[in-house]
Amino acid sequence: MGYFDAASAAPLHPVARQALLASLDEGWADPARLYREGRRARMLLDAAREAAAEAVGCRPDELTFTSSGTLAVHSGMAGALAGRRRTGRHLIVSAVEHSSVLHAADVHRADGGEVTEVAVDRTGAVDPAGYAAALRPDTALACLQSANHEVGTEQPVAEVAAHCRAAGVPLLVDAAQSLGWGPVPEGWSLLAASAHKWGGPPGVGLLAVRKGVRFAPRGPADERESGRAAGFENIPAIVAAAASLRAVRAEAAQEAARLRELTDRIRERVPRLVADVEVVGDPVRRLPGTVTFSCLYVDGETVLHELDRAGFSVSSGSSCTSSTLTPSHVLKAMGVLSEGNVRVSLPPGTPEEDVERFLAELPPVVARVREQLGAPGAVGSAPVGGGDDALVVDALGRRCPIPVIELAKVIGDVPVGGTVRVLSDDEAARLDIPAWCEMRGQEYVGEEPADRGSAHVVRRLS
Amino acid sequence: MGYFDAASAAPLHPVARQALLASLDEGWADPARLYREGRRARMLLDAAREAAAEAVGCRPDELTFTSSGTLAVHSGMAGALAGRRRTGRHLIVSAVEHSSVLHAADVHRADGGEVTEVAVDRTGAVDPAGYAAALRPDTALACLQSANHEVGTEQPVAEVAAHCRAAGVPLLVDAAQSLGWGPVPEGWSLLAASAHKWGGPPGVGLLAVRKGVRFAPRGPADERESGRAAGFENIPAIVAAAASLRAVRAEAAQEAARLRELTDRIRERVPRLVADVEVVGDPVRRLPGTVTFSCLYVDGETVLHELDRAGFSVSSGSSCTSSTLTPSHVLKAMGVLSEGNVRVSLPPGTPEEDVERFLAELPPVVARVREQLGAPGAVGSAPVGGGDDALVVDALGRRCPIPVIELAKVIGDVPVGGTVRVLSDDEAARLDIPAWCEMRGQEYVGEEPADRGSAHVVRRLS
Repeated sequence: MGYFDAASAAPLHPVARQALLASLDEGWADPARLYREGRRARMLLDAAREAAAEAVGCRPDELTFTSSGTLAVHSGMAGALAGRRRTGRHLIVSAVEHSSVLHAADVHRADGGEVTEVAVDRTGAVDPAGYAAALRPDTALACLQSANHEVGTEQPVAEVAAHCRAAGVPLLVDAAQSLGWGPVPEGWSLLAASAHKWGGPPGVGLLAVRKGVRFAPRGPADERESGRAAGFENIPAIVAAAASLRAVRAEAAQEAARLRELTDRIRERVPRLVADVEVVGDPVRRLPGTVTFSCLYVDGETVLHELDRAGFSVSSGSSCTSSTLTPSHVLKAMGVLSEGNVRVSLPPGTPEEDVERFLAELPPVVARVREQLGAPGAVGSAPVGGGDDALVVDALGRRCPIPVIELAKVIGDVPVGGTVRVLSDDEAARLDIPAWCEMRGQEYVGEEPADRGSAHVVRRLS
Repeated sequence: MGYFDAASAAPLHPVARQALLASLDEGWADPARLYREGRRARMLLDAAREAAAEAVGCRPDELTFTSSGTLAVHSGMAGALAGRRRTGRHLIVSAVEHSSVLHAADVHRADGGEVTEVAVDRTGAVDPAGYAAALRPDTALACLQSANHEVGTEQPVAEVAAHCRAAGVPLLVDAAQSLGWGPVPEGWSLLAASAHKWGGPPGVGLLAVRKGVRFAPRGPADERESGRAAGFENIPAIVAAAASLRAVRAEAAQEAARLRELTDRIRERVPRLVADVEVVGDPVRRLPGTVTFSCLYVDGETVLHELDRAGFSVSSGSSCTSSTLTPSHVLKAMGVLSEGNVRVSLPPGTPEEDVERFLAELPPVVARVREQLGAPGAVGSAPVGGGDDALVVDALGRRCPIPVIELAKVIGDVPVGGTVRVLSDDEAARLDIPAWCEMRGQEYVGEEPADRGSAHVVRRLS
């Protein structure tokens, strides 16, 4: 089968499984105790910390284990912000950080702090100059992911780190997506990661804090893990996390080259196999196993469901998937098409045949979904009202991708140079109608207020 | 060997091990995803929640899994306090709660909240009337453990719950020590527990919040586990926790009776086998596997070390163990002897022979330690200064149990009715000198300020 969602969670690496089993019998006791079972547990914990620190590129006493990558981010941001409270309460994040970073930023804002979100370009990358411009005398902390979790784009960490260093501001790097592939470029002050992303067990995050970084642990006091992660240490999982990080690193260079070739195939062939597709993310500076594309006239939920039936597990940043009604904040920040969004993230070891089979199955799946939705070419539409220059499509109450489909159906009725207004109260339309215009070579004039929702004005150019 | 520290952590139950292994391959994916691996993970998580909820005695949707018992307590207290902030900011805890509760109370106090600590009697139990008296119109939350982690005393949860219910105040019960033995008595509003205390794996805590209890999750938003426990769910460990809770419960009644008989032996025989011992904690209302005693003229660190050499792993609430310089807050609140403190907490399945061997090894261990320390009867002392009525023992700079040993050495030189002043700057002396007086039938007159430390005044009565 094709499990293509390694960016969410990777299956347990065989080394992780083996290390977990071996340490279940040796690592269950309290490592703070001085009796033999406690000493054994402490030895396992110390050895795991050394191994993980070596992989991260820090000293063992700079590294603490948390119970998840999310908690590593929360603890790291809160501690660094509190440690530099005297300097100020300004925080910088990129617009495409993981939700754990953005939600911690929300808490900081609600608590009276100030947050600057640095924009990204259409590939999802920040401009280092954007960080340089955002840095202020009262900036307490800057955060930047090593690579984006939804589109795979690598961020210019070293360049941003240089700007931060020059300003004396610590940089927290969320390395969740990249740590299995190699160390983060020099220059970070705090680093967070999550073991289950590289094939380690769930229940283990890493938080590294460089010596010299001001850090004031938050929350109730706890003597474990330098006060940065409260609660009893999960030593068997920690041992498994460290062992598997070392193992995936040993295979990383070779496996990265292989996966990169496979994702290059997807990047190149999907737009040839499926009409009206936008591949998003940087084509070169990107994670080896991740590729993301969006398909016009397709809804995310149905395409995920159909791919699942065909044996492929992928995720989507579209709105109208499961419980979310807004497109992913990443796609939004990039300003790219969000409808029919598919993220493929290959776990190490993915066989070439699985990718080939995916490339064979995808086109009929998309065709079926488009047919079901009455995408352009299928069924006629009944546009409401208007003279030549005032065609109106009423898509109120209809969710993504229907507003775009309705627009595409009527564009042929609009005289070249004339406009059409799409009435929509769907959040995704704000992203997808401009993206459609860009893909179709039409002009997105803008958004106007309407009695309900908004009117998106499009001018036919060709 | 004798691992007698189940109150810290229990070895993994065979059922936990089996369930963990089985679910490593099925439960690694993200349960929020709709593809097959995600659905499988979700099914495991749902089934574990149902099993755990049944054991706790609540509805599955009232139960969330956290990554430790400590985080369950932190999240539960913070959420309940925030949820009732409009009512007021008064918090009630007992003086003998686990440090996770007391540290969360410290945070609340530092944040401008008010905290009342309800005292305990010499057995370590609270008086329900103490909670009734502490309840106020602005009380947001009350916390009480089901049983004490250091001395095993069960708390009158049902009675305290009745008082809280009458006042409309939610009661959070820390059930970490007792949940493996049976459900908590009715009446709790929030309940916290920790899987590694009952033989589940590390990395899993439980937080149950009754429907209708006002609860406002704190910290950065996270959609997992009802917003009460941020971070990716550790499903294999959760499955193992739920399965082992069910398994230990099935064996609980029989095993409790067996362990109770073994700990009764220790309670009865240690004072006969070793002179100058105080067994602490309630003799009847107590956890089946826990018994705690303190030995005069013995330091905790050395006795732990000697017992470890003899093959027994126990813990101690004495000061002068590892890094702590103050006696445990529990022994302090109870007002009992803290020196030479030994907690024995038997894991289920402890063989009778191990307990018998412990009873055989303990007396020579204590005798050796007393000999090393020059306890009364061994070496002569050189009391400083003083007439008949003004004998002074200078124990400044000496740590527990030396001040008590020095006192015991000179008491014979004090005329009946006369006093001796022990100069000490050791925190434990404040607890142990009065305890010694009580055990020896002498009068503790009180503590007076001195140039350095304090003078503890003792009157010889016999």
